Amino acid sequence: MKVVHFEDAETKNFEGAGATGVVGRLLIGQADGAPNFAMRLFELAEGGATPRHTHAWEHEVFVHAGKGAVWRNGEWIDVAPGTAVFVPGGEEHQFCNTGSEPLRFVCLVPRGSPEL
Amino acid sequence: MKVVHFEDAETKNFEGAGATGVVGRLLIGQADGAPNFAMRLFELAEGGATPRHTHAWEHEVFVHAGKGAVWRNGEWIDVAPGTAVFVPGGEEHQFCNTGSEPLRFVCLVPRGSPEL
Repeated sequence: MKVVHFEDAETKNFEGAGATGVVGRLLIGQADGAPNFAMRLFELAEGGATPRHTHAWEHEVFVHAGKGAVWRNGEWIDVAPGTAVFVPGGEEHQFCNTGSEPLRFVCLVPRGSPEL
Repeated sequence: MKVVHFEDAETKNFEGAGATGVVGRLLIGQADGAPNFAMRLFELAEGGATPRHTHAWEHEVFVHAGKGAVWRNGEWIDVAPGTAVFVPGGEEHQFCNTGSEPLRFVCLVPRGSPEL
C-alpha cells in the first residue's frame, strides 16, 4: 500500500502547447503496481489553464481546492472543491483557474494513455 | 461531459458488516458512460469507519477533507486532505475518521467490481 501526500510527489511543469501555469504530479501509476488506471494531481496557478484539446481516453476529475471552470460544448462551467467531472473520450475539454488561489484537482486516466 | 458536485449525488448509507457511519455516493460510473473505472465519494462521520476487509480489486483513494487513518500491515497510518492511497488488490485495508469533522475521500475502482 502506498500512502503519499501530493506535496511530497515529484512535480512536472507544463508550459506551452496551450498550457499555462500548470504543475502535474503522478500520485499512483504503473510503477506502484496500479493495473488499470493512474491518478495525477494538477495544480493551476492564478490565471493558469490546461490546453483545450481532445483525445481518445476519458478523464475522471475531482476538484480538491480553489476556484475554476471547465470548457464544455462551447461554454465555461464553474467547478469548486467537491465537483466531479467526467470527460468522455473524444470530447473537447479545458480547465482554467478563475480564482486567486491555486486550483487543484485529481485527474484519473486509463492504462494505455500517458501517465503524466 | 458530466459535471456534478458530490453534495448533489444520491447517497447510500452503509451500516453493519463492519461499517460505521459511512455514506457513499457514486459520482462517475457506467451509467455515465465511464468505460474503465468508477469514482465514488465516501463520507465517514465522527467515529466512523469502513470495514476491515480484503478483495481482489484495487482502490485509488484521494483524501478531500477531514482527518483520518488507514490500516496498513497492522498499523494505522494518518491521512489528511491531499493524501493519496493506493490499495493493491488482495491487501487488507480499513479507513477511519480520527477527527471531529466528516472525513471525505474519493475512492476509485476498476470496472467489474461493485460500483457502490
